[in-house]
Order: sequence, then C-alpha cells, then structure tokens
Amino acid sequence: MEIFKSVQLMQRHSESLRIGGRHISFVPTMGYLHEGHLNLMREGKRRGDYLIISIFVNPTQFGPNEDLEKYPRDFEGDERRAAAVGVDAIFYPASEEMYPPNYQTYVTVEEVTQNLCGQSRPIHFRGVATVCAKLFHIVKPHVAVFGKKDFQQLVTIQRMVRDLNMDLEIVGLDTTREEDGLAMSSRNTYLGEAERDSALSLSRSLVRAKKLYDAGERSAGKIIHAVQEFIASHRGTRIDYVKICDTETMQDVENIQRESVLALAVWVGSTRLIDNYVFGQTLNIV
Amino acid sequence: MEIFKSVQLMQRHSESLRIGGRHISFVPTMGYLHEGHLNLMREGKRRGDYLIISIFVNPTQFGPNEDLEKYPRDFEGDERRAAAVGVDAIFYPASEEMYPPNYQTYVTVEEVTQNLCGQSRPIHFRGVATVCAKLFHIVKPHVAVFGKKDFQQLVTIQRMVRDLNMDLEIVGLDTTREEDGLAMSSRNTYLGEAERDSALSLSRSLVRAKKLYDAGERSAGKIIHAVQEFIASHRGTRIDYVKICDTETMQDVENIQRESVLALAVWVGSTRLIDNYVFGQTLNIV
Repeated sequence: MEIFKSVQLMQRHSESLRIGGRHISFVPTMGYLHEGHLNLMREGKRRGDYLIISIFVNPTQFGPNEDLEKYPRDFEGDERRAAAVGVDAIFYPASEEMYPPNYQTYVTVEEVTQNLCGQSRPIHFRGVATVCAKLFHIVKPHVAVFGKKDFQQLVTIQRMVRDLNMDLEIVGLDTTREEDGLAMSSRNTYLGEAERDSALSLSRSLVRAKKLYDAGERSAGKIIHAVQEFIASHRGTRIDYVKICDTETMQDVENIQRESVLALAVWVGSTRLIDNYVFGQTLNIV
Repeated sequence: MEIFKSVQLMQRHSESLRIGGRHISFVPTMGYLHEGHLNLMREGKRRGDYLIISIFVNPTQFGPNEDLEKYPRDFEGDERRAAAVGVDAIFYPASEEMYPPNYQTYVTVEEVTQNLCGQSRPIHFRGVATVCAKLFHIVKPHVAVFGKKDFQQLVTIQRMVRDLNMDLEIVGLDTTREEDGLAMSSRNTYLGEAERDSALSLSRSLVRAKKLYDAGERSAGKIIHAVQEFIASHRGTRIDYVKICDTETMQDVENIQRESVLALAVWVGSTRLIDNYVFGQTLNIV
C-alpha cells in the first residue's frame, strides 16, 4: 500500500494508472475509519481494479464553532484498517498542501444545499463540494463511493459531478449500523454512556416513520410530528431538524409522492448526529 | 475536422485520445473567429498533437443587460477558418446541452475577480470560471491557450486551475492587434466608422503609459490620470475604468513595484472595449 502526501505525486501516479488502462475507484474520508468506511472501500474494490482512499480532515467544511480541532484522528490505525481491506494507495495531504496561501476558489451547488444541514451549517457544503472537486482532480477516479448516511452530501456531489461534467461515476452505499441500529460515525466516539442510549432515538424513530409510511401515511407533517415526539422523549436530545424532502431537489414536501427522504439532525449532549431513511426502501434495523 | 455537439461524445473522444497517448491542446472561444483566435490556435498546434477548440457563447457570463443576444455568430465561417489553421475537432454544444434544467453548480474565484471587470460585470467571472471548468472536464486538455487581451480572465482561470488542482497547463498569449493598434475583438464589429477612430484611444493610451513608465514614472495615479485625459479627449468615449493592478492579486497599486498591469475598459458609443499593458513588457503598437 502506497502513501502519498503530495498533490503532484498522487496526480502523476493516478494519471499513469489511467494511461495504463487501470480502473481507479476512490473513497474520500476524514479518517478515523470505522466499519462504515470499510464497507465503502469493499464496494470500491468491487468497482475498480485500483482502490485509492483519501484521509483529510477538510477545514473548509467546518464552521467557526464546529469540531475541526477535536475531530478524532488515528492515522496509524487507519493505515492498518485500510491495508486489511486491500486499499492500494492512501492520499494523506497536509492542510497547507490542499489550501496554500492565497487559496480563493470554491464550488457552490445552489439548490440542493439550501435546506437541512445547509441551514444549520452555512458553509459546510461549499467546503464539501470544493474539496471533492479537488480530490477528483488529484486522484482521477473512474468511480467514487460515498455513504448514504450523509444523504445531502451524496446528492450534492452527484449534482456537482453532473453539472460540471466531471467524468466519473458516483455510487451511494447504504448506511452501516451498529448492531443496535445506531448509524456508524466517527463522531459516535464523542458520546458518553447515557448519551449512547439516547442516540438510539434517531435510528428507532426511522423505524417508526417507516411503519407509518408502510401503513399508508403520506402526510409529511404527521410523520415528522411522530418522529419529533419520539426523539424528544429521550434524555439529553435537542432536535436540529426533522424534515421530509424530495430526494432530487432536497426541498420540503407536504405529501410523500415522489421519492422522499426523512432526514434528521439531533444534538445528543454536545454531539450532533444525523440519520435518514428513504421511504419505500428497506431498513436494516432490528 | 470533427464537429461534436454532444458533451458525452466529445468526452468519450477526448478520453480515448488521452489513453492513446495523444497530447490535447485546447482553445475555448465564443466563435466569430478573428486573427487573434487563430493565433491562439496556432500556439495550440505547437503545444499539442491534437487541437480542439470550443465555440460556445456562454450565457452564464453575460449580465441581464449585456449583449448575449446580439453577440455575433458565424459558425460556417468559423468552421472554414478553424480548418485552415489545422484544428482537429470543434466542440459546438447547444446552450441546453451545457446548462440543462435544474443546473445549479458554479465555480467562484474570489479575490482576483473583485476588481476591474468584476465590478462592472458582477457575475461575469463566475460564468467564465464555471464554463471553463466544464469545458476542461469535457475536452480533457493537457494545455489550454487563452489571450492576454482578457487579462483578468487569464489570471482567474490560472488561479482556478491551481486552486482546484486541475491537471492542465494554462498558456497566455500576447494580444493580437489590427495594423493601427486596435486590439482584436469580436465586438469590434459593433463599431461605426467614427467610433472605430475613437477606439484607437485605448491602444494609443497604452503607448503613452509605457513611455511614462520607461521614463521612470512609478506613480500609478499619475499614469492613470494621463491615460484618462487622453482617452477622454476622444469623441464618444466613456471610461468604465482605468486601473493599475498587481498581476497576481489584481488589487490596485499606488506605486508600480511588483509586476503590474494597466487595465482599461472604455465605452465607445454603445460598445464596451478592453485593453491592457503589463509594465516592463514590449508593446507592438506603431
């Protein structure tokens, strides 16, 4: 497994792979790899013959009062875990390598980033789109795999790739969960024991929403109300948003007709967690 | 010479050229090709072994009251002129092919677009950066050639390519001029006979500025004042801006120390013309 810290060396390596006819798959991460990341990588292995991952805690997607500084890091552990699933190369740049002095270019995806996390985290998706554009230019993948846990991020990247005519395929993979249903996230490490219990209210509320939908409920307001009540009944939770949106436009819907997603962001103590469920799909929570 | 109107077919063609080891050079244009464009293409021929040009009047770089509708077009003439200089392929997409419904992604280069034309034409450089990002992804060039007449555009594209780690070289080529010094521009066709005379005040003012500089003058204010007076003495001219800027930041300078550019935008009748001179360089105006 090769480690590249330089933009130029990574880019030269990827270009020669492409000219040599290799099919590059790519999984961008912020590191502190868990089973969810490893599943993305396993999917990457299936979809290409050379798998590159990036590990980069991207400063431009964190707001001024967010957890950039305390975001968990463990490069040596990440290296071991990546090697074990057969990653071929890790791109691991320093912040100054990605954002040198006088850096000033940003990619903005307008509509699909307005709602949900775009409201709670105003510059977040600009940072995500920008760093992904950079990473795609550096790593030159044929296919990139993203998790559906960050649903709005996935929609944003798909939209950017289509709009800017980037020549790669974006694949979304189902959320990997702990046995009890909690969506895997590097931020779960912030949770204390009691918070860990309350955090289950997110995934369990998705199950409740699915049941209502499966029983014929199509009113977004009614499903949202049920979810809000359920989450609020758990100690230490504070709802950032509970919304039901069209999966193409990410705008709120009143009635569920086209494909729609229930999206949640909930503070549990001082940790902000997200989860989501696309109506009509299966949900592997016991 | 091949003509591609489809994004997908152009992209597939370019990808196979790259895999085949060809070196692609690229000249993006808005068509109505004149000798200035043809010189960019000749430079493109020298720098690659497969030359692609694009002809696309890009709507996102025109403001609501600008000349998008009346911008001159002549595809058949352009085809002949391109073939004559040895262009290998023309990318000639329709507007809806480049900006389909729900289009919503834009590239913004912040600092270097604030001054000069960025003030007179607020969304102009966002449109230029966005369409160039798209074209680079579609045409996949190793090198792209731009004219220095649009100096701020060149600086903006260079900045975008560097910041977003796009893997291509941007080359700037000296402005091509009519025998009497007028910078070549498709918009020169808008000029009536008397306006054509007044339009010479732009290039001639550059000569005056160069003389002042060569004689030791380093005060931006004094050079600007002389240029303004000279241009204003010509009938039908209205100055949009006369500025002297650092060529890296495009911010105004008071004294010319680092590399600086004198940049002009002047209305002649109802036509807005631009021209510029980088101090210390040669200026081929008689």
